[in-house]
Amino acid sequence: MTRAGTDRQPWTATVLTLFPEAFPGLLGSSLAGKGLERDLWRLETLDIRGFARDKHRSVDDTPFGGGAGMVMRPDVVGAAVEASAESPGPLVYLSPRGRTFDQAMAREFAEEPGLRLLCGRYEGIDERVLEASGAREVSIGDYVLSGGEVAAQVVLDAVVRLLPGVMGNEASGGDESFEGDLLEYPHYTRPAEWQGRSVPEVLLSGHHERVRQWRRARAEDITERRRPDLWHRYLERRRTGGNEEG
Amino acid sequence: MTRAGTDRQPWTATVLTLFPEAFPGLLGSSLAGKGLERDLWRLETLDIRGFARDKHRSVDDTPFGGGAGMVMRPDVVGAAVEASAESPGPLVYLSPRGRTFDQAMAREFAEEPGLRLLCGRYEGIDERVLEASGAREVSIGDYVLSGGEVAAQVVLDAVVRLLPGVMGNEASGGDESFEGDLLEYPHYTRPAEWQGRSVPEVLLSGHHERVRQWRRARAEDITERRRPDLWHRYLERRRTGGNEEG
Repeated sequence: MTRAGTDRQPWTATVLTLFPEAFPGLLGSSLAGKGLERDLWRLETLDIRGFARDKHRSVDDTPFGGGAGMVMRPDVVGAAVEASAESPGPLVYLSPRGRTFDQAMAREFAEEPGLRLLCGRYEGIDERVLEASGAREVSIGDYVLSGGEVAAQVVLDAVVRLLPGVMGNEASGGDESFEGDLLEYPHYTRPAEWQGRSVPEVLLSGHHERVRQWRRARAEDITERRRPDLWHRYLERRRTGGNEEG
Repeated sequence: MTRAGTDRQPWTATVLTLFPEAFPGLLGSSLAGKGLERDLWRLETLDIRGFARDKHRSVDDTPFGGGAGMVMRPDVVGAAVEASAESPGPLVYLSPRGRTFDQAMAREFAEEPGLRLLCGRYEGIDERVLEASGAREVSIGDYVLSGGEVAAQVVLDAVVRLLPGVMGNEASGGDESFEGDLLEYPHYTRPAEWQGRSVPEVLLSGHHERVRQWRRARAEDITERRRPDLWHRYLERRRTGGNEEG
């Protein structure tokens, strides 16, 4: 779990942003924040505005062809991207046009030595920077955000908790929604009776196999009702003997 | 654009969390932050730990039925939810089991008087609180986060930018990915030539109709290649004469 005896660097996130002061933000709390303190991962920011060259330090300009909003300049963003080239990991541009982020991509990113995360603001970034840099465009979902920063925090939160040693109790990493194509079963804790509502009997039975079966059945039921897309993928993997354990 | 002359309250977010200090976080920056300062929307937090009743102020306990991780107690979270009942808007629980958040849901939420956002940590919240409160479960995507806080910031970022007056240039709200079922076309700004790469000629032509057609064609092309699911929805709406303008 520790990396003593190896000369490997910890997994390193490099965030290219106009709002470096917003990091680590939520990533400084809880287990991700403890992981930062223990040097299990590292977080660096690169202030895009530092690469502006005119006296107003402008980073954006009006779009060619007209239209509302401003576009981030290729010379400024391009220089920031070049400066990040020494940092480990692929370059990811957070954008609603990107490939949709999911748990499988989080696992892929956790296998990299790090990530360079390019955050856009305004209407976006000049297309030529994306072409020239070969950035991977990644979207955290089908909605429009005011900038890439909160998306970068989402990606980092999902990736960092998969890094060795970050989660206090590593066992709880494998038991959750999406890790086995099913949504998670319901949870219950003390008190056993609350406002006239009881915990399902089977969970108090101490019978591990019955508990396991009940949880699996509940997870299947919730997935089938709420997410037919995941449900069909789950059935397909069972049929083809994919990475299904149960 | 202003609400002078009405006695309506600004749109109000109430976040139920164990990490109230993490708010506004990124929502304090940029246009959302300016909107907060101008009282175009309001942000309140309710510290769940304040509703713990034992001397250790514990908010979680081990799960009935065994397994890794901890579950947030129904009495503690339930008391926090009750205390939020005076605040405007529906109760939303951020959870990977929820209905998937998208731009249409963001627009719905912007029409509410506000939102109450319940953020879980650890393995989640006792199921009885969700049953008793009738919370809407919402997921920002198919990945596992260490808690609901960053998801709440995503939802708020997407919603707040749709509130009247928040975006400096309101026109730029309607032109983006998902607003018309298409991903966004590429953007270009000065310099017209950068590292041997030029801006597409048509964008320099000053011919508005040709620019519009080029952008539409590029948006269609990108959507068809990257997101067949959106592309089919777009074609379907065109066929049935849905809210398509072009």
